[in-house]
Amino acid sequence: MSRSISVALTPSGLAPECELHQACSIIIDVLRATSVMTTAGLAGAKRMITCENIHAAFEIADQSDSERADQPPSRPLLCGERHCKPIDGFDLGNSPAEYTPDRVVGRDIVLTTTNGTRAIQAAMRSRRLLAASFLNLAATVAAVESEPHLQIVCAGTNGQISYEDVLLAGAIIDRLNESGSGPGEPTDHLDDSARIAWSAWRQSLTPARALEESLALSLGGRNLIEAGYTSDIGRCAQIDTIDGIAERVDPGKAVFRFVKR
Amino acid sequence: MSRSISVALTPSGLAPECELHQACSIIIDVLRATSVMTTAGLAGAKRMITCENIHAAFEIADQSDSERADQPPSRPLLCGERHCKPIDGFDLGNSPAEYTPDRVVGRDIVLTTTNGTRAIQAAMRSRRLLAASFLNLAATVAAVESEPHLQIVCAGTNGQISYEDVLLAGAIIDRLNESGSGPGEPTDHLDDSARIAWSAWRQSLTPARALEESLALSLGGRNLIEAGYTSDIGRCAQIDTIDGIAERVDPGKAVFRFVKR
Repeated sequence: MSRSISVALTPSGLAPECELHQACSIIIDVLRATSVMTTAGLAGAKRMITCENIHAAFEIADQSDSERADQPPSRPLLCGERHCKPIDGFDLGNSPAEYTPDRVVGRDIVLTTTNGTRAIQAAMRSRRLLAASFLNLAATVAAVESEPHLQIVCAGTNGQISYEDVLLAGAIIDRLNESGSGPGEPTDHLDDSARIAWSAWRQSLTPARALEESLALSLGGRNLIEAGYTSDIGRCAQIDTIDGIAERVDPGKAVFRFVKR
Repeated sequence: MSRSISVALTPSGLAPECELHQACSIIIDVLRATSVMTTAGLAGAKRMITCENIHAAFEIADQSDSERADQPPSRPLLCGERHCKPIDGFDLGNSPAEYTPDRVVGRDIVLTTTNGTRAIQAAMRSRRLLAASFLNLAATVAAVESEPHLQIVCAGTNGQISYEDVLLAGAIIDRLNESGSGPGEPTDHLDDSARIAWSAWRQSLTPARALEESLALSLGGRNLIEAGYTSDIGRCAQIDTIDGIAERVDPGKAVFRFVKR
């Protein structure tokens, strides 16, 4: 099968003519929103609801709370960050390390972050919507390999292109093409940004450089280091440690469930 | 010297915080505006005046005409394209092949194109402003190698990232770093988009693929082929055939002169 793969290096790079309603879209925010969603999913979070602002997050939690006043543990956990830091009054920040089974198992999570949840919103019209990270690269590839129209959306950092997200976009393209023509030219139809992302990934491997070092060089990585979250870079640089993916449940709603392979 | 290199993969990718007034900016529209400017410069064009729309081009020409009514040959040549095609009432289109010495020597040129002249406008506040192409890659590198703050602006195609411009951005970065650390990691400080562009260039060379083939794959290349200008791709894929560069003369005015090395 020859598939088409388009990449938006930031959400605003989504081409006006792209037909999202026919596409399976993959959202990437390596540092850290989609790594968090993947980690929280594995840890047993029931649903992950993403929203763009703090006010909306409180509203969703309050609504859910009043619906189920008899079941106090079902109140959603408020999660996310602003300027990399936890948000006042929220339960969890945006570090994958916080999303342990004892904290999240069976709980709904309401997540708002600076870049990742905005990228999800930008691609909401997609037919399918998935959240990818290096942690679940193989599961991502498995989930989309029979899709003819793939749209990858890199969250970027504050509107700017961010190397770490572009690397993962390239890694997904590279894996999808592994079964094709071998290490040379991809067999899929790539748009220009997809070709560029693929190049960035291929080039990052020569000379041998650990993924963690590449992520530390990136705009997202430098911001995390500055904010004191250096160890999260290593956590998000693990490849294929989680065998499942967070996928949107209903079209039009930013509600995700973790699907094990 | 450690220099900083930033790349805007499209003009709208110029970071809000970038300090253009301190930067030396390099405008890239490989297919074809900056290749045309380089070719016209070598062919002896006196000044190259770029503008964003057809109306402004006619105004500039008329104004210049009335100033020098006694010297008819000094009327500027109206040059450019819309949708890759020549513009009604204009003297020359946007193919480098048209810019021969017998047509342009000693003449002013007024150029308006879909993407290239807009990129120039977006970077107008720069301290220095140069027009680069593969034709004059070595001259470009020589012109900027002592600049501490380089801003490369890729014109792209109709607002989208275009592979051919990103390749040249990467080639410039690669050449600037050749004298540094060798083939491995650049010694310059690269922003994320600069690193991505550099990767695209490095990767385009393996496995060995002629630059012309890479340009033909690009968004700009595909558009040119569709419009019937396939041979221009080969013309713009020559490396280091012209030893000079078009540089803006006065800050704030889009007037360029070709400077031989």
